[in-house]
Amino acid sequence: MDAAEALVRRFWDCANTQDWPGLVRLLAPDLRYELPQTREFIHGAEGFVDFFVTWPQPWRVSLERVVSDGTQAAVQMRFHDAQTQPLALGFYTLRQGCIAAITEFWPEPYEPPARASRFVQRA
Amino acid sequence: MDAAEALVRRFWDCANTQDWPGLVRLLAPDLRYELPQTREFIHGAEGFVDFFVTWPQPWRVSLERVVSDGTQAAVQMRFHDAQTQPLALGFYTLRQGCIAAITEFWPEPYEPPARASRFVQRA
Repeated sequence: MDAAEALVRRFWDCANTQDWPGLVRLLAPDLRYELPQTREFIHGAEGFVDFFVTWPQPWRVSLERVVSDGTQAAVQMRFHDAQTQPLALGFYTLRQGCIAAITEFWPEPYEPPARASRFVQRA
Repeated sequence: MDAAEALVRRFWDCANTQDWPGLVRLLAPDLRYELPQTREFIHGAEGFVDFFVTWPQPWRVSLERVVSDGTQAAVQMRFHDAQTQPLALGFYTLRQGCIAAITEFWPEPYEPPARASRFVQRA
């Protein structure tokens, strides 16, 4: 496991155990968090941790896949609360041993269009 | 650039230039292609290439970010046709120098819910 994967796993361990002081130590002070689908963003580690702290229900995240090259990591994960368990994808960029940028995607299920290829099946 | 990143870049170069014989040579014969959002899948390299060949309009894909660990790669990309340019995310698993599995996500824009944290801004 390389440094980026270890850091991202630690990040989610801290989040899942509400270890907010531990979490903030993993983040660059000028962290940039982006949600391209909604055009939302948070600038700064303090605001990012507040976003987690103020989440209205208990939740946790389980990691389904991690790809890391040592300075970037991409994660496929599942968010769990009492009602739902949506899938999410995150890209993490490291700088000097901290997470400096997070980009997150929340792809929702949808009905597929008609497909021209006869090879497309459906589970 | 490691082997997985090189292979994924070559995969999209072949697709963008409609080099279908070149594309099929990069794929394991038993390739598994999955779209979790629609629960669609294709089993086999032949069917996967047919899916690209039969796409109803001209298109190309540009890569915005690649994270690779040598045996897996994660890509953030943009699909371009005459009308749209949606964002997509792909995970690629290699086996013996070929792409053996592709999982693709197509996250769409959405209106954000009310946020409890005052630190969330919108671009």
